[in-house]
Amino acid sequence: MVPGHEVVGEVVEVGPEVTKHSVGDVVGVGVIVGCCRECRPCKANIEQYCNKRIWSYNDVYTDGRPTQGGFASTMVVDQKFVVKIPAGLAPEQAAPLLCAGVTVYSPLKHFGLTAPGLRGGILGLGGVGHMGVKVAKAMGHHVTVISSSSKKRAEAMDHLGADAYLVSSDADAMAAAADSLDYIIDTVPVHHPMEPYLALLKLDGKHVLLGVIGEPLSFVSPMVMLGRKSITGSFIGSVDEAEEVLKFCVDKGLTSQIEVVKMGYVNEALERLERNDVRYRFVVDVAGSNIEEAAAEAPSN
Amino acid sequence: MVPGHEVVGEVVEVGPEVTKHSVGDVVGVGVIVGCCRECRPCKANIEQYCNKRIWSYNDVYTDGRPTQGGFASTMVVDQKFVVKIPAGLAPEQAAPLLCAGVTVYSPLKHFGLTAPGLRGGILGLGGVGHMGVKVAKAMGHHVTVISSSSKKRAEAMDHLGADAYLVSSDADAMAAAADSLDYIIDTVPVHHPMEPYLALLKLDGKHVLLGVIGEPLSFVSPMVMLGRKSITGSFIGSVDEAEEVLKFCVDKGLTSQIEVVKMGYVNEALERLERNDVRYRFVVDVAGSNIEEAAAEAPSN
Repeated sequence: MVPGHEVVGEVVEVGPEVTKHSVGDVVGVGVIVGCCRECRPCKANIEQYCNKRIWSYNDVYTDGRPTQGGFASTMVVDQKFVVKIPAGLAPEQAAPLLCAGVTVYSPLKHFGLTAPGLRGGILGLGGVGHMGVKVAKAMGHHVTVISSSSKKRAEAMDHLGADAYLVSSDADAMAAAADSLDYIIDTVPVHHPMEPYLALLKLDGKHVLLGVIGEPLSFVSPMVMLGRKSITGSFIGSVDEAEEVLKFCVDKGLTSQIEVVKMGYVNEALERLERNDVRYRFVVDVAGSNIEEAAAEAPSN
Repeated sequence: MVPGHEVVGEVVEVGPEVTKHSVGDVVGVGVIVGCCRECRPCKANIEQYCNKRIWSYNDVYTDGRPTQGGFASTMVVDQKFVVKIPAGLAPEQAAPLLCAGVTVYSPLKHFGLTAPGLRGGILGLGGVGHMGVKVAKAMGHHVTVISSSSKKRAEAMDHLGADAYLVSSDADAMAAAADSLDYIIDTVPVHHPMEPYLALLKLDGKHVLLGVIGEPLSFVSPMVMLGRKSITGSFIGSVDEAEEVLKFCVDKGLTSQIEVVKMGYVNEALERLERNDVRYRFVVDVAGSNIEEAAAEAPSN
């Protein structure tokens, strides 16, 4: 299995029916490389919700062969799932926008949360959360980072430009922030209570879940009814939205915060990922790596 | 304490500053008789979400005195919270629209669920649920009643005009109905699982909770994320929406299903309510009752 989504590269060859891209274009590929093209989500160009979507790696393609991701010299992808990287965006900067970036952009757009002046909360400050702060700030929102400890306060406020920082275990601060947010982008991928965060939402506020959590989340019904609040979720974004978020980032001068590494470093990078020791995404420079050297260093499993 | 919301009567006297109603008008009062008039919900005329709303009975009014409901010969209410009953609607027919009717109408309107052809589910077939079937049918929706047993099938299909009936314990029927509904109006006021119903929703479907349930409801996040579904709720409706639903019912020729009783019958009616033995709302004809006789029959507690 060859992993790697959020892939950026140059087109080196095109098939005879390709019209969308040309040799030499700088392009990107996200999490999905196939869909049925016939269901309601596909017809609405939100193919991420197609029940027959095909993942960029570790999935089975229409020809029955395994899909292989972007940790590779080349990759063959249907033009439909390939986006153009606009001028003005460095390839390594574009990469995290193809999953993390579009994952926060898509729900803000879909749920009508793009107007300047909105007050948003970002729950969890990892790869997706840091893009949430940046995208929401670029939309002109007042952004509160909500975290379980005060460890990331300086990072959130000084580096990422958040307007406020809220520690969820600080009961006084949470009570003071009640009824203050139009939305919460919840990037936490593990079980957590819902009610303390629902209480932060204003009337008609939306709690948008982005983390796949197998253990049930719970809430009492008056917490949503009495403020007509919504608990909802969103799943990556479409190819169209990926193109939109790339353009949005160019227009707003928004950059992702990344650490570029070579292929020979991937095992150490994975270990650091497990320790949550990355600000905020590793980007692997495959073309700039000595692949044979890296392969020799990699464990055989 | 004098209970009674969903009150309909004739104006017998107006204060000097009353402009909205005149003596002789047939008018109604819902669940709320006061609000702060200054908060965001009040300014948006959705005073049911005002944190200082005053209930029609068993609450404390602005003058410090208890509020008294509609099981009475007369009631004094601020004109703001009094709606005109339109011509063409019998007073006893109008009564259940002032709470049950507006409770289902408000979320359908607010969440953009009024277009003909939508497919809706009504979970629970009591006072609110039966209005849900009627209002949704009058909007031109395909309506499925979802119930824990097949007991109410004939009632739902033949009497109320539902298009389909789904027994939630029938795993095959539930699986066949997966991904088929635009919304579920959930009127069940006791704990129940969420996931079997979330599975019935299409992409972007909405599960609207109307029942106050103290025991936590739970779900796993992929159930909302992977179809961008929403779990939300709604709480009665505004005075403006009460006027809208009254007009809607006149326009559509929609009637509520009621049993009119006299005051002397209220204790038996309450006992029958506890046994869920009413199709679907009792309306107490106070003016037509011999109040002194009823009082003599009532227990002193």
